[in-house]
Amino acid sequence: MTEQVIQIAGSKVHYIFDARFATLSRICGRKNTIIVTDETVFANHQEKFGRWQVIVLPAGEAHKQQATVDSLIAQLMAYGADRSTTLVGVGGGVVTDMVGYAAAVYLRGVSVGYVPTTLLAMVDAAIGGKNGVDVGVYKNLVGTIRQPAFLLFDTAFLQSLPLVEWENGFAEIIKHAAIRDKAMFRQLETSDVGIFQKNRKLLNQLIMRNALLKTKVVRKDPNEKGERRLLNFGHTLGHAIENEHGLMHGRAVAIGMVYAGHLSAQRRGFKDTLRLMDTIERYGLPTHVDIDMDKALLNIRMDKKKMRENINFVLLDAIGKAVVESIALRVVDKYFLQ
Amino acid sequence: MTEQVIQIAGSKVHYIFDARFATLSRICGRKNTIIVTDETVFANHQEKFGRWQVIVLPAGEAHKQQATVDSLIAQLMAYGADRSTTLVGVGGGVVTDMVGYAAAVYLRGVSVGYVPTTLLAMVDAAIGGKNGVDVGVYKNLVGTIRQPAFLLFDTAFLQSLPLVEWENGFAEIIKHAAIRDKAMFRQLETSDVGIFQKNRKLLNQLIMRNALLKTKVVRKDPNEKGERRLLNFGHTLGHAIENEHGLMHGRAVAIGMVYAGHLSAQRRGFKDTLRLMDTIERYGLPTHVDIDMDKALLNIRMDKKKMRENINFVLLDAIGKAVVESIALRVVDKYFLQ
Repeated sequence: MTEQVIQIAGSKVHYIFDARFATLSRICGRKNTIIVTDETVFANHQEKFGRWQVIVLPAGEAHKQQATVDSLIAQLMAYGADRSTTLVGVGGGVVTDMVGYAAAVYLRGVSVGYVPTTLLAMVDAAIGGKNGVDVGVYKNLVGTIRQPAFLLFDTAFLQSLPLVEWENGFAEIIKHAAIRDKAMFRQLETSDVGIFQKNRKLLNQLIMRNALLKTKVVRKDPNEKGERRLLNFGHTLGHAIENEHGLMHGRAVAIGMVYAGHLSAQRRGFKDTLRLMDTIERYGLPTHVDIDMDKALLNIRMDKKKMRENINFVLLDAIGKAVVESIALRVVDKYFLQ
Repeated sequence: MTEQVIQIAGSKVHYIFDARFATLSRICGRKNTIIVTDETVFANHQEKFGRWQVIVLPAGEAHKQQATVDSLIAQLMAYGADRSTTLVGVGGGVVTDMVGYAAAVYLRGVSVGYVPTTLLAMVDAAIGGKNGVDVGVYKNLVGTIRQPAFLLFDTAFLQSLPLVEWENGFAEIIKHAAIRDKAMFRQLETSDVGIFQKNRKLLNQLIMRNALLKTKVVRKDPNEKGERRLLNFGHTLGHAIENEHGLMHGRAVAIGMVYAGHLSAQRRGFKDTLRLMDTIERYGLPTHVDIDMDKALLNIRMDKKKMRENINFVLLDAIGKAVVESIALRVVDKYFLQ
C-alpha cells in the first residue's frame, strides 16, 4: 500500500494505491457512509459490501443520465443522508461520475470518495474531479469539477473485468504516454495486456504512474484553461462518435487518437502516426471505424469544448509532446470529409 | 446608480444598485447572452426583452424542480449555448435559484448574472451564491454555492409587484434587522410598506443596506460553517411548513421567526418577542398559522441543515444579536408540541 495526500485546487485528495477494499473502514465509518455502486460490480463483488449501506444503480453508459441521479438523490433522502454523510462511488467511470455529481449537488455538497473498479476509471475517469451526466447522446454535458476526499485503488476488482474493458483502459494509458510520457510509451510498445494482467506489481506501478501523471496535469490547471486540455487528446472526435455508434469509450478514443495523429502529421509535421497506430492495435483497440462523418461533425459542433466557430484540438508534435491548436470548424470539416 | 465590486470566496461580484435594466447591454453583449425569466415577469415586462435571446420558464415555486432545469438545459443546447455564454436570470428567487444552478452545472459551469425582480430576491434570494431546486416538498435539497458575476438592481420591476410580494420581501428585511442591525429594526418599527413604495430613494437605500448586510455575512462564511447560519433565523420551521402548507416564503419565515422568538425567550432570556411580532404584523405578515406540527417536525428532521440528532437553531439574545444553538431534536419536539 502506498499513500499520498495531494492538494488539488484547494482540496486535499488522499490517494491509497495498491490497497484492499477492506481498508475503506479505516477511512470512513459505516454509520455515516453510503456506498453507491452498479448492478455489475454488486453482482461480482457482493461479499465486499456485506456490512455497508449500499445503493445499487443500473449499469452502463445508457444510464448515465439525470434520471439516474434523480433516483440516486431520492434514495439518499430515504437513507436520511445529511451533510455529515460521505458517499463512496464504487465502480467504473459512469458510477464515479454520477456519484461525484450527486455529491456535489445533494444538500449543496457532501463528501465523496471513489473506489474505481475498472482500469479506465483507475487511470483516468476517477481522477481530477470532473463529474456529470450525459444529456441524450451528448457526453458529460452537465456536471461540476469537484475533487473527491479520497481514491482507493484495489486491483482485485480487475479480476472480474472482461478483456475488452482492460483494452478500454489502455486507450487512456496510451493517451497519457502520447501526450506526456515517451518512456512509458516505449514500455507500452514492448508489452501487452497479458503482461500487466499476470504481474500485479507491474500493474500497480502502471496505475500509479498514470493516476499521478493525470493528477499532475490537473493540479496545474484544475479548471481546464490550459494544460488540462491536453488530456482531451483523441476525445474531440472520440466523444462525437462514442454514443452515436455505441462504442466503448476507450475504443472511441483510440479512433479519435488516430484521427488526431493524422491531423498532427498534416498541421504539425508529426512523424509517428504509424507508431501510435501500432501501439493502439497492440492493445486490441481499433484504429478506424466506418463512421457517419456528417453526424460526427454535428456532434463536434455541439461539443461543450467548442468556442463558437473554433474548436480546440489536441495535436502531437512528437510522442510525449502535445499542443492545443484552435482550429476553425470549417477547417476541421475539410480534414475529416476529404 | 451605485456600483461596487465585492470579492466573495475568490469570486468578484459586481453589484449595480439603483440601476436600469437597459444597463445590462453595457455588461454583456447580446450575442453571447441568454436571458432566462418566467412567464409572469415576461408578461409584465415584455418590452424590456425585445432584442435579447430569452428563455421563459413556467412561474412559481411548484416549478422549482429538476424537471424545469432539465428543460432549461435542453433549451440552452438548442440555442447552442457554449462556455462563452452568460446566462442572466431575471426574476424572483425561484428563477435566480434555478438559473444559478443550471449555470453551475451546464458544461460544468458557465457565467451567470442576476436581475432580481422581487423585493425578496433583491434583499435576499439573489445574494450569496446559493442556488438549487426543491425535491418534492423539500426546499433547495439539490444545488450548489456559486457566486454570480453580477447583480443588477432595477426597482422599476417592483412596480408590477403585488402587495403580498412586497410583504414577502419585508420578512427577510425584518430578519436581517433582527439578527444584525438594530438601527434598521428601529427604522422598520416606525415605517410601513407604503412609505417605501412611495419613496424610491428610501427604497433603494433599504435594498442596498440589506443586500450589503447579507453580502457581508456571506463573505465571512461563504460555505455556511459559521456566521452565515444566522441567516437561517426563522427558516428552520419556515422551510418545514412552507411547501407543506403552500405558504409564500416570507409568510412561512415570519411564522418561523415568531416561533424562534418564543424559543429564544425560553432558552436565551430574549425579551423582545412582542416587539418582533408587532413589526412582523406591521408589514402585513402572519405571526401564527394552524400547522400540522407532527408533519412540520418530520420535515425539520429531513431538513438539510440537521446534523443527525441535533438541529442548529438560530436564536436571538437581543434585537440585532443572533446566535446559533445546537438543540437536540427531542427537545425541539417538546417545545413545539407543548
